[in-house]
Amino acid sequence: MGTRLGDLVERFGGQLVGDPDLEVQGIAPLDGAGASHISFLSNSKLRALAAQSGAAALIVSPLDDATVATTYAGARIVTTNPYAYFARVAQYFVALEEVVPPPGIHPSAVVHETARIAPTAHIGPNVTIEEGAAIDAGVRIDAGCFVGREAEIGADTHLFANVTFHARCRIGKRGILHSGAVIGTDGFGFARENGVYIKIPQTGRVLLGDDVDVGANTTIDRGALDDTIIEDGVKLDNQIQIGHNCRIGANTAMAGCVGVAGSAKIGKNCTFGGAAMVLGHLEIADNVHISSGSMVSRSVLEPGQYTGFYPLAKNAEWEKSAAIVRNLSSLREKMRSLEKQIKQLTEPSEQK
Amino acid sequence: MGTRLGDLVERFGGQLVGDPDLEVQGIAPLDGAGASHISFLSNSKLRALAAQSGAAALIVSPLDDATVATTYAGARIVTTNPYAYFARVAQYFVALEEVVPPPGIHPSAVVHETARIAPTAHIGPNVTIEEGAAIDAGVRIDAGCFVGREAEIGADTHLFANVTFHARCRIGKRGILHSGAVIGTDGFGFARENGVYIKIPQTGRVLLGDDVDVGANTTIDRGALDDTIIEDGVKLDNQIQIGHNCRIGANTAMAGCVGVAGSAKIGKNCTFGGAAMVLGHLEIADNVHISSGSMVSRSVLEPGQYTGFYPLAKNAEWEKSAAIVRNLSSLREKMRSLEKQIKQLTEPSEQK
Amino acid sequence: MGTRLGDLVERFGGQLVGDPDLEVQGIAPLDGAGASHISFLSNSKLRALAAQSGAAALIVSPLDDATVATTYAGARIVTTNPYAYFARVAQYFVALEEVVPPPGIHPSAVVHETARIAPTAHIGPNVTIEEGAAIDAGVRIDAGCFVGREAEIGADTHLFANVTFHARCRIGKRGILHSGAVIGTDGFGFARENGVYIKIPQTGRVLLGDDVDVGANTTIDRGALDDTIIEDGVKLDNQIQIGHNCRIGANTAMAGCVGVAGSAKIGKNCTFGGAAMVLGHLEIADNVHISSGSMVSRSVLEPGQYTGFYPLAKNAEWEKSAAIVRNLSSLREKMRSLEKQIKQLTEPSEQK
Repeated sequence: MGTRLGDLVERFGGQLVGDPDLEVQGIAPLDGAGASHISFLSNSKLRALAAQSGAAALIVSPLDDATVATTYAGARIVTTNPYAYFARVAQYFVALEEVVPPPGIHPSAVVHETARIAPTAHIGPNVTIEEGAAIDAGVRIDAGCFVGREAEIGADTHLFANVTFHARCRIGKRGILHSGAVIGTDGFGFARENGVYIKIPQTGRVLLGDDVDVGANTTIDRGALDDTIIEDGVKLDNQIQIGHNCRIGANTAMAGCVGVAGSAKIGKNCTFGGAAMVLGHLEIADNVHISSGSMVSRSVLEPGQYTGFYPLAKNAEWEKSAAIVRNLSSLREKMRSLEKQIKQLTEPSEQK
Repeated sequence: MGTRLGDLVERFGGQLVGDPDLEVQGIAPLDGAGASHISFLSNSKLRALAAQSGAAALIVSPLDDATVATTYAGARIVTTNPYAYFARVAQYFVALEEVVPPPGIHPSAVVHETARIAPTAHIGPNVTIEEGAAIDAGVRIDAGCFVGREAEIGADTHLFANVTFHARCRIGKRGILHSGAVIGTDGFGFARENGVYIKIPQTGRVLLGDDVDVGANTTIDRGALDDTIIEDGVKLDNQIQIGHNCRIGANTAMAGCVGVAGSAKIGKNCTFGGAAMVLGHLEIADNVHISSGSMVSRSVLEPGQYTGFYPLAKNAEWEKSAAIVRNLSSLREKMRSLEKQIKQLTEPSEQK
Repeated sequence: MGTRLGDLVERFGGQLVGDPDLEVQGIAPLDGAGASHISFLSNSKLRALAAQSGAAALIVSPLDDATVATTYAGARIVTTNPYAYFARVAQYFVALEEVVPPPGIHPSAVVHETARIAPTAHIGPNVTIEEGAAIDAGVRIDAGCFVGREAEIGADTHLFANVTFHARCRIGKRGILHSGAVIGTDGFGFARENGVYIKIPQTGRVLLGDDVDVGANTTIDRGALDDTIIEDGVKLDNQIQIGHNCRIGANTAMAGCVGVAGSAKIGKNCTFGGAAMVLGHLEIADNVHISSGSMVSRSVLEPGQYTGFYPLAKNAEWEKSAAIVRNLSSLREKMRSLEKQIKQLTEPSEQK
């Protein structure tokens, strides 16, 4: 009932050292794997652990394979990126056991007659789909989701339960929207007159590319006039807020609780640690990495790692340092006064 | 099929310079506007752009009009606040095209027989409305919303899909609650005994005034005994948390991800940048402006702009500065020691 | 129609000084209580207020009772923890008036035929419960909730409207999940290959113990392979994010907007102020208290209070201090240079 190593290699590549007819039934970490498992060595520091692993087979890099070959008796699949290979094999085994809901529209779902639902799509219980929405092949929309008027959901995209996807927004193929995510809510735009806010209509859309993941309770605002753009391969964790008219470049990843204010333009291949914040209208170049908890208050045009958070300390120590931080300019004044005094002390002695 | 400039002026005020029978069909930015558009000049720096605009008409301030009159050939509506005028005209054009759902209760909605639903209200699919709730004229409640027992929704208020509005809470007229917002969840109140938390019942309500906007996935807790109060005209962006028994003064605006802990009292006409945090039981005066990412750990009783976040730097530089911040008190000690030494060096020389 | 003081003491303990047949109908604060109320003195500073209280009876500590006995004429219940006693009495009075929905499954709910629903459980309108889920006695699941395949909800647990509880996750007894909470969403795990993220399947669960409260719009990720664990008595406020494979120790409490990155292990009896953030893979000991707005970027192995946020100041002052923080290393360099100069000035004079 397992999968042949030969079949894995045929499907995912890599060079097999060992019996192609050997079968494995799942993937497990080095120290948890048994004779029915394949495991993986993604970090050279774990070579010793690999030697002792009970796994039937190991996924290893060419670099590690030289050592592993001498210490580990099982089969090996040699590949340049064992961690990515692990991810694909794990996806494969999960898919074997996954309970996939059948195509079709649950009777309790409310689907407007003008909505186009692909025959292979699954529409779960208590879902609402408005007029003119388009749901492509293989899409899965779980219970309680809302898909607004003329919205478009690309092939094989998965909306977990209780996602809200507003009118005219679009997501490409193979996307994942986790529960509670809200796509296409109004941006926060107002004119102020006599102390009162007057709402500026938000008529843009949110356009998400292919292979985009959006975490639970993450919110992405529609653009004011133009669109908010999330490019291909962007991965957003939970509880993230993306303001109107932002653009997030391909394959950028953001950890939980990040906030991006309106009209910020973020490059490709960036990473943002948890709770990082980006002010509005800033530009962030490609390959910029922002540490957790950092406030980005100016554009960052050079790649690199950037950080800005107050270091943690015992409360009593923080009290001291924070009090000094509050008066840093007086500390600097004293410094300058000392410099002057020393200069006076030094100069006359030189004149003697 | 357009709207006469004369009709706009009759509706929204301002002084028309040009043909009242000229028709426009929409509003567009200066550089995107064509012969069927009206545009607006809200920033004097853009006067040059206005001169070149292809718009049929411009909304301008009296100050800018003097210049614009000499450089721009189209019609003008002169008004003291062109940006607010733009907002109103944009609302007008959006309303012309908006698909408004018809009054009535969708058959899939579950509405308790004792709930009072105005005939002009729209109750969407899969909505639940509990006993004794009151839904006023022109209210729109989109798919999947929940309105608890004896809650009250004022006239023309709009609940977007998947809003949760708990028992006995109230919102006034013309409010907007965006998707995923949760109004009236229990406050976070516990007594601690023998290391275990004992829940304190939260029996207050949330009372929201007129013209209040609440962003997507924003949460507002009900009061413990007294009520949580959100006054007229307050605008809350997405993912904001308001703790129990807070009061937020009229026309205060908060950007995304702000947090306000319980019992904080915030004045009128304040603004809070994204991810600003306010500790519990504090008082913030009227007209206080808190910058993004700032932690408000003490009451702020004087109007003005306040800030408190660690400045962003390249990671290597931050490592250096953070290490010094951690030891600022030793830096100050050294400074004091230097002061003393210099005093000794200086004083004897004066005694000579 | 009230409750006898004697009955309260029988139910909740404490020593009654006064007439056991005296009836009270509710609990109120010292200054709001009248002849039909019982009140409580949880803070010795309020003794003067207690003396003037119109309450029929007071809950007091033995320490305060000596004073209160001489100044206050009503009945007293003497108990070591008046605040906890208040919480229990308040729960009691609230329960008397609470509208409890009847047991049974609302006709609009979609419950899979293989799900086990206890006869005393309440399943509200528009709820979805998938195959194999188990709902224990006294559970209350309000409108719009989703409970995934093989999930387990322990006795007397309450899911407020619009909660999402994913497949195979478990919660124990007497839990409260507030609206918009999402339990068991996928963790944020990816392998990166050629600049593209490959999803690592998240096959662990979320296991919540007994007496766990989860706030509105809080999200807890399922583990990657192992489970995410929330121990007994943990209290989480709104808008909190808990990453995959975290463990949170018993009776730890977190205020709103806290974020905990993946694989962090947090001890028992800890408290986290609002918007505190914990990086991934860290360890936090028992009895650690983290102040609001603090970034925990290293493990904290010693109990105590820890803080790390930039102090708030008027914006102009912050501009100054932040500019100096940015250049703290140059300030330190100057300091060192001054030290050297002073040493040179001092040493020769000693050699004379």
